[in-house]
Amino acid sequence: MRLISYHLKGEPGVGVMTDATRFVALPKAAPDLPRTLKQVLAQRDGLDRARAAANGRSADLSLSDVNLDPVIPDPYVTWALALNFKRHIEETRLTTSTQYPHLFIRHPGSIVGHLQPLACPPPELDRAYDYEGELAVVIGRGGRHIPMDKAKDHIAGYACYNEGSTRNYQSHNRQFGLGKNFERSGSFGPWLTTPDEAGDIYQKELVTRLNGKVRQRTRLDDMLFSVEKTIAYISGGHLLRPGDVIVMGTPGQLPPPPGEKESDPSNQFGPIKVKGAVHMRPGDRVEVEIGGLGTLSNSVVADEPAVYRPL
Amino acid sequence: MRLISYHLKGEPGVGVMTDATRFVALPKAAPDLPRTLKQVLAQRDGLDRARAAANGRSADLSLSDVNLDPVIPDPYVTWALALNFKRHIEETRLTTSTQYPHLFIRHPGSIVGHLQPLACPPPELDRAYDYEGELAVVIGRGGRHIPMDKAKDHIAGYACYNEGSTRNYQSHNRQFGLGKNFERSGSFGPWLTTPDEAGDIYQKELVTRLNGKVRQRTRLDDMLFSVEKTIAYISGGHLLRPGDVIVMGTPGQLPPPPGEKESDPSNQFGPIKVKGAVHMRPGDRVEVEIGGLGTLSNSVVADEPAVYRPL
Repeated sequence: MRLISYHLKGEPGVGVMTDATRFVALPKAAPDLPRTLKQVLAQRDGLDRARAAANGRSADLSLSDVNLDPVIPDPYVTWALALNFKRHIEETRLTTSTQYPHLFIRHPGSIVGHLQPLACPPPELDRAYDYEGELAVVIGRGGRHIPMDKAKDHIAGYACYNEGSTRNYQSHNRQFGLGKNFERSGSFGPWLTTPDEAGDIYQKELVTRLNGKVRQRTRLDDMLFSVEKTIAYISGGHLLRPGDVIVMGTPGQLPPPPGEKESDPSNQFGPIKVKGAVHMRPGDRVEVEIGGLGTLSNSVVADEPAVYRPL
Repeated sequence: MRLISYHLKGEPGVGVMTDATRFVALPKAAPDLPRTLKQVLAQRDGLDRARAAANGRSADLSLSDVNLDPVIPDPYVTWALALNFKRHIEETRLTTSTQYPHLFIRHPGSIVGHLQPLACPPPELDRAYDYEGELAVVIGRGGRHIPMDKAKDHIAGYACYNEGSTRNYQSHNRQFGLGKNFERSGSFGPWLTTPDEAGDIYQKELVTRLNGKVRQRTRLDDMLFSVEKTIAYISGGHLLRPGDVIVMGTPGQLPPPPGEKESDPSNQFGPIKVKGAVHMRPGDRVEVEIGGLGTLSNSVVADEPAVYRPL
């Protein structure tokens, strides 16, 4: 099953995809189910009821009829891993523990849904605005002190994530702070794919494209810390809750095509130069695709200028 | 005005304190007002309506009649500053930028309210569980790109914060991760004091006591980054929202009384030893007091043992 979170006329809803673009709207098909995916996951039989309601029913709506939200718009916590793919560790020459995952938190305001625009910071704030294609894991049943061999029982599904980062802010101080949490700098979608449909995630390939050119390509078995190890570690200190998100880190850059200027380190504005990396700019389109989990696609627009705006 | 967040019979409420222990319950005095303080702050006239409803009314309830929540139980984001007091920077011998605040995020599950127990991690996980007395700033009116000279217009009030930290986890990797986010490891209270009642916060003294002994004592003008500077910096990348919390960092430890064993570095279990610091243990009581903002008091209990607990 593949599920989306959306808004239609200001009201939140959950949908079950029937093909690549159309879905059954659960507010209509299952009016007794809660209206957000986090609340559906919090009910022990929530996903089963969603499946039963959508079974055999034809689609009500198309993705273009609604505003897509991040797969989980309001997670209690989004834990993100830094430096979890071996090639990314090598290319940045940064150090990380091989014993404990490298964890930080992203907040919901920094994330948009599939087909929603990403906001590129004004150039005077940070010209090094970078994509990071990643695998997102969504927690279904919560728990504390989850052993590795039980971790799979707590996974509701998987999705693609663009963990967009503003590199100069990221290096302002030792904790990443705003560098990983600029307003609308990342994305999460297109949908949640449940484990029965996703299959073995370690056999999958992740591909990131900027304006159609492949910039990252890796198999998901290149992780330093597996999903199971990470769930075991986090749940040692944190009660994992339904709808919590764990983002597994980004792989390295592909070597650039010979002679390509835009990906040359001399054209980069961040504190760490990486061959093959290209900053995102207004007008770009960025995609993160994981085999069988769909393609997360976002345009990039200029964020509003850096002018005082009281709410 | 001083406001609390609480639960009574499973229902959330906001209260206006009338003296040190009693309050007007707004669900009764102002049934049209929203039931959470974040929602009250999101209404432009929310605080004015709360004030009008409580004005001249006698108290309905006492703090001991309810379960107190963190001042804002569900902030959109809690930004916390590391290494923002000069003596704390010196005693830890850690580096920090003097140009940009050192920011990380805490999530709500790591925080409890006034008079609620803090959870000390099982000793096999981390024996270095430390208090950090801090000033919390709560955002009222939201905004982006807030200049320093407008920052005060966006502050709803102040409170005390115990930014409890598990030091071994904090040093597991370069980002703080779980070290600043152990379940129920910190606290936030006792209430929100509005700026008109709080006065000049830089003239105030912060005191942290463990089992009645003063361990931290500082004036709040010892900060590297002021509240106004921090609001200006954060709002450059993040749209500050009503109810967002900014926690301003902890001061240093007081020198220990001569001959005191428990605060000797040789009796400390963390990666960084600091003269005068004492870890928290089950059975302790910890208090953070800021002049005019009240005293945040919590007992410390042993967290449940590290045994698998699916929800």
